[in-house]
Amino acid sequence: MKCTRCKAKAEVHLRAHNAGFCRPCYVEYFRRQVERSIDKQKMFGRDDHILVAVSGGKDSLALWDVLIALGYRTTGLYLGLGIGGYSDRSKAMVEAFSSARDLPLIVRTLADEGPGLAVPDVAASTRRVPCAACGAMKRHFFDAAAHEGRFDVLATGHNLDDEAARLLGNVLRWQRDHLARQRPVLEPTHPKFVRKVKPFYLLSEYETAVYTFMRGIEYVVEECPNAAGATQLVYKDALNRLEASSPGTKQAFVKEFVRSAQALFANDVARDTPGECQACGMPAFGALCSFCSLVREVETKRARRAAAELGA
Amino acid sequence: MKCTRCKAKAEVHLRAHNAGFCRPCYVEYFRRQVERSIDKQKMFGRDDHILVAVSGGKDSLALWDVLIALGYRTTGLYLGLGIGGYSDRSKAMVEAFSSARDLPLIVRTLADEGPGLAVPDVAASTRRVPCAACGAMKRHFFDAAAHEGRFDVLATGHNLDDEAARLLGNVLRWQRDHLARQRPVLEPTHPKFVRKVKPFYLLSEYETAVYTFMRGIEYVVEECPNAAGATQLVYKDALNRLEASSPGTKQAFVKEFVRSAQALFANDVARDTPGECQACGMPAFGALCSFCSLVREVETKRARRAAAELGA
Repeated sequence: MKCTRCKAKAEVHLRAHNAGFCRPCYVEYFRRQVERSIDKQKMFGRDDHILVAVSGGKDSLALWDVLIALGYRTTGLYLGLGIGGYSDRSKAMVEAFSSARDLPLIVRTLADEGPGLAVPDVAASTRRVPCAACGAMKRHFFDAAAHEGRFDVLATGHNLDDEAARLLGNVLRWQRDHLARQRPVLEPTHPKFVRKVKPFYLLSEYETAVYTFMRGIEYVVEECPNAAGATQLVYKDALNRLEASSPGTKQAFVKEFVRSAQALFANDVARDTPGECQACGMPAFGALCSFCSLVREVETKRARRAAAELGA
Repeated sequence: MKCTRCKAKAEVHLRAHNAGFCRPCYVEYFRRQVERSIDKQKMFGRDDHILVAVSGGKDSLALWDVLIALGYRTTGLYLGLGIGGYSDRSKAMVEAFSSARDLPLIVRTLADEGPGLAVPDVAASTRRVPCAACGAMKRHFFDAAAHEGRFDVLATGHNLDDEAARLLGNVLRWQRDHLARQRPVLEPTHPKFVRKVKPFYLLSEYETAVYTFMRGIEYVVEECPNAAGATQLVYKDALNRLEASSPGTKQAFVKEFVRSAQALFANDVARDTPGECQACGMPAFGALCSFCSLVREVETKRARRAAAELGA
């Protein structure tokens, strides 16, 4: 197969787009696709300062790489989750990436934010699924870092496969409140929130993997150990089968949802405006934000256990 | 496993319902489920005369069997599609079923309705996919028979797997006009239409198969030869995998759509009221209904070919 753009020998074939690319043209194609999503969805402009949440995986590092190449002002944010060797290796990847390119990076670590706040500890003490605890804490620290650093936008590396799997999960149960909020751009609902964007929402996991490979970006290949058996993987598998039978299915599913169906759900679900958390001051729907509720729960459980151990 | 109802030895286990049944209790369970759908969705009452579209397959014969057992007034309608031995065997099954039970049956045959109207002939002369031609003709003859016979309701044997696959296909492309019309009860939009209902919309293919087996109903086991490779089968396969990973997925998908999301689409899509077809007088959105347009097309193509053969 020949490159669709320059007719050189193609190195990658994209069935969903019925196109092939050589290495330089693929990198160009990929960046143009990102630029198109940024512009079309009005994600951010040249003057905005973008906080890029980087996990050390291929998607978030590819996103940071593309945003730099496109000339945007970025700062990386790495949050250490405390998930053993996986977190250690992730942090090393992110630090190597940013120092090699001399890019500003904010590093925060859950274990340093309070006793017992590493993901495995929170999951154990509150008996939650690790992913639920992790999600709540990530959201809090991403929001807080974006607010404290006066960033204009928070960007994450969610790709088409992530978005399609999430959409399928929401649709299979018709979770209208979730569908009302599933968008590539989420406008802030409170002055302390910033806009959240997903510039890769139309680029597949395969496409980001190829980009990362072609750009020689080193990343943590291993999946988070907590992800095994996650329902998202079942949805991704189902979507990959549908995609194999009819290339373009995933993109049509997400793109057409955003274009035409999403508004039906957004208009249907009334959204409250959040107040402020009594503990941390960040937006909250109750007296405490979900992060501070989690912290209280951890503190209570730890105190109870300590008392029990003293008593024993 | 023991029967959930009577504690006898269970013969069937329904993972989606976390229940097991012996033979008599399963038959009872199945009929109650149908009765519940009929009542909850206000499909029809004791005084209504129901036209049951029967293909000779397990779902439609099971439906007819259940409706009789529940004491409803029914007449069967068999439409001979002219798909070779498959249609011959289907007709024989339907006739055997109705004569053994002394039930009224209307039989019509496409080939007798006009020259070249058997499904394979229409597909060949108009170069359509057989399923598209078949669908248009079935709709017409079902509607016409229901109108001519002054029936109150037309019932079809579509099961949960059919409805879930159709819903998945509609959702993957966000076909809002199709979603606006996907309901277990379709009220007539014209005085010559009757209400259309799907009493099995929450019962899986597996459940109807078990019912048919337990009741000793003979049916055409072979699939329509045109169905092989149909997209619906890809969707059914994907849904079966999701169901295996999380039992109850299919039912939640369809049930929750009907309960809460369907109205968003129905309210969003403006529906025109049909006029009447200049050829057959049945409801139509243009000068001709889609069946009569198809017939015209067949006639034109046949005349052209006859002329070419004369000229040659």
